[in-house]
Amino acid sequence: MTTEKIPDIIIGRLPIYLRALQRLADSGEQTTSSQELGELVGISAAQIRKDISQFGEFGKQGTGYSIPFLMEKLRDILKVDRVWEVVIVGMGDIGHALANYNGFNNRGFLVSMVFDNDPKKIGHKVGDFEVLDAGTMSEKLKAHKIRIAMLCVPAAAAQEAADQLVKAGVKAILNYAPISINVPEDVHVQYIDPVTHLQRMTYYL
Amino acid sequence: MTTEKIPDIIIGRLPIYLRALQRLADSGEQTTSSQELGELVGISAAQIRKDISQFGEFGKQGTGYSIPFLMEKLRDILKVDRVWEVVIVGMGDIGHALANYNGFNNRGFLVSMVFDNDPKKIGHKVGDFEVLDAGTMSEKLKAHKIRIAMLCVPAAAAQEAADQLVKAGVKAILNYAPISINVPEDVHVQYIDPVTHLQRMTYYL
Repeated sequence: MTTEKIPDIIIGRLPIYLRALQRLADSGEQTTSSQELGELVGISAAQIRKDISQFGEFGKQGTGYSIPFLMEKLRDILKVDRVWEVVIVGMGDIGHALANYNGFNNRGFLVSMVFDNDPKKIGHKVGDFEVLDAGTMSEKLKAHKIRIAMLCVPAAAAQEAADQLVKAGVKAILNYAPISINVPEDVHVQYIDPVTHLQRMTYYL
Repeated sequence: MTTEKIPDIIIGRLPIYLRALQRLADSGEQTTSSQELGELVGISAAQIRKDISQFGEFGKQGTGYSIPFLMEKLRDILKVDRVWEVVIVGMGDIGHALANYNGFNNRGFLVSMVFDNDPKKIGHKVGDFEVLDAGTMSEKLKAHKIRIAMLCVPAAAAQEAADQLVKAGVKAILNYAPISINVPEDVHVQYIDPVTHLQRMTYYL
């Protein structure tokens, strides 16, 4: 099986399937079908079967998918069968919200450090975290071999912060700043942009 | 032209194209190509041409797309050639961040009211907004004919708040709570879930 060539658009749907499976598991379900899953996530049953079959034969004709088995496979494919340490850069409102967010649990991520460059914030507590000096970020990220960061600085500071992260070895950046950032080809960026989500809905209004 | 049957996955890509076009326009560009656009957004040039051609012939062989013209068409299709009033429900960290977010400007949305049910928050200022009593939300939403809300309450309160919004006439909910909500068929929900974005990147690490 060569997973190298699977389109990113399919990869992007797997976390959605995993989240829906978790929801079914939480409500005590043991098996599901592509139809049921499709209704939960708003994607056709045929598309779901096609997406999942890219990675192997995980379902059975007539009996559907075992939820624990399919979740295990998806976690394995997405590499969230482990726990990734993640850092938060920028402790404004969004940084605070992420530091206090309880949605990372059991989904493959653990916030391990939070940074800011504001002397009024450094050394203070946010939830369980002490805000660390962004000036020490590079050495700390290297020491802990951090590969993933959530970037929550103002737009004007985003590119410089991203450059620092990349230099320190970060390979995946979740960017909350409302601006595109330039990174080397081997660094992945995802954007959290409320407006694109809103625009996707206004089409239907 | 019947836009009724255009797949939602295509609609979901249009805001991404629009954002990239805005970025090009901001840097003074007048024209672009599906190749250039594709590199900016990480989608193949062929896919972009196919997506856009669903709505008409907006580009010219050899000269590519006029950026202002294509932006106008996309804004028109997505119905963000107007300004939609949006409300924020729940003034925790995320609600604060959205109230102060400057990324809505010129993208079709204007935050007009913010609500919370905490007496300690009601009546206080957040950015330019006075926090309004969630108990008065229904009448205010109806009076202002609000169709769009951003839901930023804790997970445990999300379904009840969503029910209130739906009863008050809201047809599009951007849900920040880490939980799925049930709404009638004619109400659209989009989820902001940082974990799905992180999982999409770990696949490549």
